[in-house]
Amino acid sequence: MTDTAGVTQTLARYVVDAKYAGVPAAVRHEACRALLNWLGCAIGTARHETVQRALAAVAPFAGAPQAALLGRGERLDILNAAFLNGVSSHVLDFDDTHVEAVHPSAPVYPALLALGEWRRVSGADFLHAFILGVEVECRLALSVVPQHYDVGWHVTGTAGVFGAAAAAGKLLGLNAQQMTWALGIAATQSSGLREMFGSMCKSFHPGAAARNGLSAALLAAQNFDSSLRGIEAPRGWAHVLSTHFDPAIITEGLGKHFELSRNMYKPYPCGLVVHAVIDGCIELKRMHNFLPADIKRVDLRVHPMVLELTGKKTPATGLEGKFSVYHAAAIGLIHGRANESEYAEAVVRDPAVIAIRDRVFAVVDATVSSFLEAYVSVTLRDGRVLAHHVPHALGTLQRPMSDQDLEAKFRALVEPVLSVDQANTLIQQCWNAGDLRDIGDIARAAAGAS
Amino acid sequence: MTDTAGVTQTLARYVVDAKYAGVPAAVRHEACRALLNWLGCAIGTARHETVQRALAAVAPFAGAPQAALLGRGERLDILNAAFLNGVSSHVLDFDDTHVEAVHPSAPVYPALLALGEWRRVSGADFLHAFILGVEVECRLALSVVPQHYDVGWHVTGTAGVFGAAAAAGKLLGLNAQQMTWALGIAATQSSGLREMFGSMCKSFHPGAAARNGLSAALLAAQNFDSSLRGIEAPRGWAHVLSTHFDPAIITEGLGKHFELSRNMYKPYPCGLVVHAVIDGCIELKRMHNFLPADIKRVDLRVHPMVLELTGKKTPATGLEGKFSVYHAAAIGLIHGRANESEYAEAVVRDPAVIAIRDRVFAVVDATVSSFLEAYVSVTLRDGRVLAHHVPHALGTLQRPMSDQDLEAKFRALVEPVLSVDQANTLIQQCWNAGDLRDIGDIARAAAGAS
Repeated sequence: MTDTAGVTQTLARYVVDAKYAGVPAAVRHEACRALLNWLGCAIGTARHETVQRALAAVAPFAGAPQAALLGRGERLDILNAAFLNGVSSHVLDFDDTHVEAVHPSAPVYPALLALGEWRRVSGADFLHAFILGVEVECRLALSVVPQHYDVGWHVTGTAGVFGAAAAAGKLLGLNAQQMTWALGIAATQSSGLREMFGSMCKSFHPGAAARNGLSAALLAAQNFDSSLRGIEAPRGWAHVLSTHFDPAIITEGLGKHFELSRNMYKPYPCGLVVHAVIDGCIELKRMHNFLPADIKRVDLRVHPMVLELTGKKTPATGLEGKFSVYHAAAIGLIHGRANESEYAEAVVRDPAVIAIRDRVFAVVDATVSSFLEAYVSVTLRDGRVLAHHVPHALGTLQRPMSDQDLEAKFRALVEPVLSVDQANTLIQQCWNAGDLRDIGDIARAAAGAS
Repeated sequence: MTDTAGVTQTLARYVVDAKYAGVPAAVRHEACRALLNWLGCAIGTARHETVQRALAAVAPFAGAPQAALLGRGERLDILNAAFLNGVSSHVLDFDDTHVEAVHPSAPVYPALLALGEWRRVSGADFLHAFILGVEVECRLALSVVPQHYDVGWHVTGTAGVFGAAAAAGKLLGLNAQQMTWALGIAATQSSGLREMFGSMCKSFHPGAAARNGLSAALLAAQNFDSSLRGIEAPRGWAHVLSTHFDPAIITEGLGKHFELSRNMYKPYPCGLVVHAVIDGCIELKRMHNFLPADIKRVDLRVHPMVLELTGKKTPATGLEGKFSVYHAAAIGLIHGRANESEYAEAVVRDPAVIAIRDRVFAVVDATVSSFLEAYVSVTLRDGRVLAHHVPHALGTLQRPMSDQDLEAKFRALVEPVLSVDQANTLIQQCWNAGDLRDIGDIARAAAGAS
């Protein structure tokens, strides 16, 4: 590479040359946190109909049983496993979120775990490849957002394919030339429309990104070539898929800071905009331990976007419940939690929940700085008024979920699939992933079914 | 579907309801011509390194031996077979060209033949599905070109995926709802950058379109859903991937005229811009039967684009030879033909070819109406001046290749792979494809290797 190398080549060279020793301990631990969070999401939704239908579509054409489907007994070839585990990662929209860009894990970990299991790679190589893949996809996304997203692209798909390609290419030991080609082959497969939000295709995007990125790396490993300037050329990815491109974002400070440090995890399986309200209600319930019958009324002061996106007063289904800040408050106050089980249709239609929901009043308050902030006030029948201010919702960078929080989330997600012992084993494997001699241990443990 | 159905639903409904009886005989025959031409291109390049590398990359992950690789002994699952046969279709850039839009066959026939062989479909169903797939991809392309192409998209990839999805969906018997989803799943996979021209990724595009379109249909058949307005929604395919969109082009006159009628076939495996010159040289050689030693000088009057794109005076490799109108004239005058064999490096470096090439003089003539027109004049050492005007190159709609021309092209392409008997059998199968009870007969014959 010369000084005139473009960003595609510079980025490729960085990924090829990077050493795990250069990654700070906190970033390595963040990769373990992301792994635990991702596995929980994928295992927990392994039997969702979105996954069932995708599996039924591709199973007759799958190859040798090289890699596990998370939370399931089946084993498929690594490309199809990457695809299906990518789909299940995102079905609940409960996976991680970079503060400014993509859902980082859903396109990258499925490609890596399938490839890593098949090649029996070490946990350290696996985590390092993940960290680099996230770096690539986030920097690419940051170089073109928000215009790229505004045009209509689902950036988790369009940038995710690069992350999967870079990560898989690192595991495959590509040289700089091949890594450049891998990024080019990823560029020419980049796709995913926001129009698909609300359909099964939203989860299809990280699945396709995982599979296509992995195949880009496999092709490049065979010297299947592509443009050397797939990202920055006048007809390259950035200019064709966005009206804005800041190439410096891709290369500045590579290896100095890590985008994975800016990763967030959701405590609740619903849109981020109601998280602060749920936090406040759970906290009030925890502090004062009132009963539902004690509640006279509930007042919320929220950011305008909260009512714009989740203003549904009388939700009737689980999915509608996710778009109701009123339901969100009710389950926080009654159940003291908001897991997927609190979005079951039976809960949304539960008269006890509806009784509280109907006493919730939400108003927009211009002094609320973001949709991750909220004020909750509960008036009890005995006249007491219990108020709580949530300046930053749980899961934000200002108030991250703790490792214990992530464990609890994981346990709740995998409960229908794994035994308590299996869950505990997998949790420990995640925290110690960097010491594993064979990452396949995690893949097999996460498959669950014996 | 109601009157308010958008173009995605209208197009889906058309494909689902269409009957083969409604297709004119000339269009059916055009499907056979396209089939013969496509098979020749794919069989002839089955051992090209682009295909070898792609096969090496995916073979370890392929599934059951459901479908043949053209010109090869291997059998793979239908998705991988569609991919690889799509790649080999386009390696020489010798496949068919719609007069205004895409390379129609390369994304559609590979998906269909793989699926058709596996499902043992009849030749009539197979040809009909192809005709519909071409209709879909060409109409989509026409609705967004030239702006879509100018932005930097390789329309054979971006529109081809819809053609493959529609054609495969027709064979699978999708209902209108499922066909709409299949088009949506295709929309959200649409990709392929013109930046990749000149690399192996150009051939990757129809391969990926074939595989992804086929998978879209397979997913939709399992009721994997997507947007119902994947094409026309504000954040749908047309608006995200183009600055121009004329939806009426997609639906006007559906079933009344067929875009396949506007398909062109290349007689020579090089850019269309030198075809008229080659025609003129071959024709002069045929009429006057001079020897290379008789030639004193050669004068060409051509459209400006000819010298802009193929002005290379001293090509040194086969690929460079394709960008030299001088080499084109020399091989036409010496060999009386221009097959792939005339672009071998040995021919490009042959002193006898170079001797003539150096006597070729080309000038731009503003009166030449298009790059498919040319004037050729040969001055012999005996003083005679032999002139020929080619108003329309062979292969254009004004002067189509005859069925015999297509047979000759096919024979030349498959010669390294198939015996004369095998080639003759396959030619007859193509002309009679509509009568075959099992299209797999053609797939197996086209595999070649016993």
